[in-house]
Order: sequence, then C-alpha cells, then structure tokens
Amino acid sequence: MTARLLDGPTVAAAIRQAAQPEIAAFTAARGRPPGLAIVLVGDDPASEIYVGSKMKSGAEAGLRVDLERLPATASIEALLALVARLNASDAHDGILVQAPLPQAMGRHAAQRVFDAIDPAKDVDGFHPHNAGLLVQGRPHLVPCTPAGVMVMLDHYGIPLAGSRAVVIGRSDIVGKPMAMLLLRRDATVTICHSKTPDLAATAASADILVAALGRPGFVTREFVKPGATVVDVGINRVTDRALAQSLFEPGSPRLAGFEKRGSVVVGDVHPAVAAVAGALTPVPGGVGPLTVAMLMQNTVTAAKTRAGI
Amino acid sequence: MTARLLDGPTVAAAIRQAAQPEIAAFTAARGRPPGLAIVLVGDDPASEIYVGSKMKSGAEAGLRVDLERLPATASIEALLALVARLNASDAHDGILVQAPLPQAMGRHAAQRVFDAIDPAKDVDGFHPHNAGLLVQGRPHLVPCTPAGVMVMLDHYGIPLAGSRAVVIGRSDIVGKPMAMLLLRRDATVTICHSKTPDLAATAASADILVAALGRPGFVTREFVKPGATVVDVGINRVTDRALAQSLFEPGSPRLAGFEKRGSVVVGDVHPAVAAVAGALTPVPGGVGPLTVAMLMQNTVTAAKTRAGI
Repeated sequence: MTARLLDGPTVAAAIRQAAQPEIAAFTAARGRPPGLAIVLVGDDPASEIYVGSKMKSGAEAGLRVDLERLPATASIEALLALVARLNASDAHDGILVQAPLPQAMGRHAAQRVFDAIDPAKDVDGFHPHNAGLLVQGRPHLVPCTPAGVMVMLDHYGIPLAGSRAVVIGRSDIVGKPMAMLLLRRDATVTICHSKTPDLAATAASADILVAALGRPGFVTREFVKPGATVVDVGINRVTDRALAQSLFEPGSPRLAGFEKRGSVVVGDVHPAVAAVAGALTPVPGGVGPLTVAMLMQNTVTAAKTRAGI
Repeated sequence: MTARLLDGPTVAAAIRQAAQPEIAAFTAARGRPPGLAIVLVGDDPASEIYVGSKMKSGAEAGLRVDLERLPATASIEALLALVARLNASDAHDGILVQAPLPQAMGRHAAQRVFDAIDPAKDVDGFHPHNAGLLVQGRPHLVPCTPAGVMVMLDHYGIPLAGSRAVVIGRSDIVGKPMAMLLLRRDATVTICHSKTPDLAATAASADILVAALGRPGFVTREFVKPGATVVDVGINRVTDRALAQSLFEPGSPRLAGFEKRGSVVVGDVHPAVAAVAGALTPVPGGVGPLTVAMLMQNTVTAAKTRAGI
C-alpha cells in the first residue's frame, strides 16, 4: 500500500465550510435560505437512502429542503406538472428529480423530465443548456460528481495543466462532463469506453485516471502508471463470493465484512491498485461524499444567480 | 505521394444532391422554400467572400437566402434587435451571424449574439443548447465544419468504431464538437492543445488525426502514423516567403503560385504528410466546401423540425 488516500469526507467538509458564509449572507439578504426541492417517485430502497442523505446534508448546511413524493404509479404527465410547479416556485432555487424513474414511465422518461427543469434551477447539471455551457468552457451548474472530483484534485494539489488524463466511461452524468472539466484545466484528455482497443495500455498512459464505468474492480494494476492519481467513481455492490475473493486478500477486514453481511461495496478500481498508484480515492469514502456536498454547493450557486448576487 | 485524397467538392456535391428531394418536398408541403437569414456586420473582405459563397450555394440548392447588412458602426443592441426580429420571422428557419463582429461591439459580442439566436434556428450550432444536445449524444444542429468532416469520413468508408482519434485544437466551433461526434461513433478520442506535452507522439497514435489549430503546416510527418487518415481543418494565408519555401518543394506549382501572387493558402498539415498518411483532405479543396454544404443541410433540418416534418 503506497498510494496516498484522497479522503472524500475531508474534502466534503471543506466544501460545506466554504459554503457557510455564502448561505448565511444569502439568507440574510433575501429573508429566506436557498431552497432545494427533491422529487422522489416510488419507493426504491437505494433512492430512499440517497435522498435521505441529500436532505440531511442540505438541512445541516442551512438550506430549505423539501421532499416531494409521487407514487410509483404516477404518470409522467403528473411528474412534469410537478416540475412545472417547482420551476415557477420562487422559494425553490434548485430542483432534483431522483433517478431512476419507474420503468412504467417509459424509456426516455428521465430525459424528458430533466429537459423540463428550468436550466437556472438544474442543480444536477443534466439539462442540455448546462451541458452546453460546460463544453463551451463557461460552466454554470455542473454535474455534482465530476464537479466534486475537481474540488478534490485541487484540494490535494494534484497538478492538472499539462497532465495526461484518461477517463474510462462516457456517461452524460460523469464521463463526458469530467473530460470537459479536465480539458478546461489544460489536461490532455482521452475518453475511453467499451469499444476502446487495448484499454489497459491507454489507461496506463494517464497521470490522472478516472474510472467511471460501473464494473467492480475492473481497473487492475496493469491499467495504472506507477505514481498516477486514480479517481474511482464506481459504487458497486458485490454479492458474488468468488468476485469478492478476487478483490480482497484472505483475512482482510473487507472480506470479513463480506462474509458477515453477504455483500460488499467496491469501486471500479481493484484494491491492489493502491500498491501502484500515487494517490487514490477509496470506495467507500472517496468520491461519494463529494456528490452530496456539490449538490448543496450547486443549490447555493443557483440561488445566488437567480437573485442576481 | 501515397495518401488517397479526400475530395471536398465531391462530398459537398453528394450532400447537396441528397438534400434536393428534402428541399423539394418541404417547398411543396409548405408553399415556401426553407429560409436562411445571413447577417453581415461591416465590410470585412474575407467575410464578404464567405457570405457570398454561402448565399450562392443556398440559392442554387433552392433555399430562400436573405442577406441582412448592418454597418460596422452598428451597436450590439441593434444587432440583437435584428436577431430578435429574425427569431420571430416565420419565413426564416435558419439564422447565421457571420463572425468576426466589429471589435467595437466588445469582447463577448459574438457569444452574446449566438446565445440570442433561437436554438431551433441556430444553423451554426453555436448555441449552448445545441452544444449540449451534441455532448449528450442527441445532436440536432451541429457546427457545420465537424458535421461535414463526419459526412466525408463516411463517404470514403473510413472506419470509426474502435479507432483511435486525436483532435488537435479545442475550439467550440471545431475541436470540441469534432471530438464529441467521433466519440459518439465509438472512436477513442483524445483532445490535444497548446499545453499538450509531446504532441507529435500523441498525434502519431491516431488512426484518425484532425488538425484544427490554425497554424500553417504545423502537423509534420512525425505527427502521423503511416496509413492514418488526416483531416486538415486549417485555412491559413501564408505571406512569408521562408515559410512558403519550408512548405512546398522548389519548382512546385504551389510555390510558383506564391511567387506570382505573394501569398498561398495552406492548411495546418504540412504537405509532406501526403507521403505518410493513408488518406488526407487537401487544402484548398478538402473540408472547406463541406462547411458551406452543411450550412444548407442544417437549414433544411431546421426547417423540417420547425414544421414538425
């Protein structure tokens, strides 16, 4: 184990602390705190946990956070009507619709709903207008996970300008905005994906390697140049014993935890990478806490911009 | 000289021919042709030439093309008022404001004006909404030059999926949209720029190399893997004799042309690359004609979408 661990909770606390005076000043000036509406459709257990975490974090920071629930049987029209009402609400500066939506809403439901959110309140940064501002180098509301990764890299003084960055994964939510953020900071950026030939060799050219593909432990030692900074965006629940045994050493606490609970959460990066990388975000405790902190920061940004502050 | 030449006029003619039935059908259905408004501020000689070429090409294809002129002394407010009028005009499906704008309009004038164009009529594809749709993999109106390059690569059957593509240049108009288009077609894409270390070696990893940096003859043989496809987006007027002599062989027709006229137009790719590349777009006669053809195609696309066809 040589890699320096990049600690998510530490950076998340720094983000929250930096936002405190902004939140206090906004609340004093406007007579109300920045307001966030979270929309939860149905009762997916994982979504309940994510939403609970976002509400707690927002409330602790001094935001107004309102949870709007719709039943799993709600129509997309009902959801769009709720979004329209929140778009028009002066007290709500940010709107977040928790994904995934029930399958019964149809294949493109999430996209339709994200497109319907006022870009000025789009604290997830999923609206095409905000995606376009980011690609054009003038970011306003940026997807929370890649935005949080940038804060973490800066917090630990990882040099970006002139570096080589490789992003594995090209989602709209992580991979592509991550690439644009790194490019904007003068990294030379390569975007890899399932069709990339010789992925390990390409990844091993990176000074900064971001894994966001959603496959447990996929990024092994051969993917990593010695000393590189490795950012693990994956959050995968492993329930297969053979897989767990291939990831964790016999007798390790993580494997013992798996034996006890029957599952273990691992990232896209194999734990053995810690012996090669120069710096590494652990899972859990790496990127995850940053996402929630940046949601709060985006709500403050949206509130200030809407108020012309 | 081994590289197959990718011929711009041939591909541009194919784009125009494919659009003919669309234009005829639209005109028959709507009782009017697709309409394009071109706004030209001032009398920059190069802009006059570009605008003339766009008008001629559009008119020949059967579009309505209106030129709206403003004097070089016009205020940005006057220009924005003109854009607002064209946004509201039912006869105009596309609006193009020719850049550059007079310096007196201020540093961010072009951005303000492009942002003011109705995204549904944004045939240049410069509005953040259209940039966002492209990055999210659902392109609507795409910047003409990179869109034309994609048509050319397909026309000549250059394989994209699984290839390695390197784009040199990260402009909003060419480099970044080019990267997104190649990524969408399953190329592994690296975006390079002025801060990229060891640029030649990085470029030489590419199966498809796109040069869009605006430096005459910058991409030399060391940048090119033997057999690679090289797309030259640069259009640079060279007036320096030593530079011209470094680009063209003694006794070559291009050098003779320089001696006669005192200038020569060259791309970002050194002519000697033709001995290494597998395929190459010449300058002139490569990407240039595609840009104008795609403007016409974008106008047709905008017209059909606005009409719900």
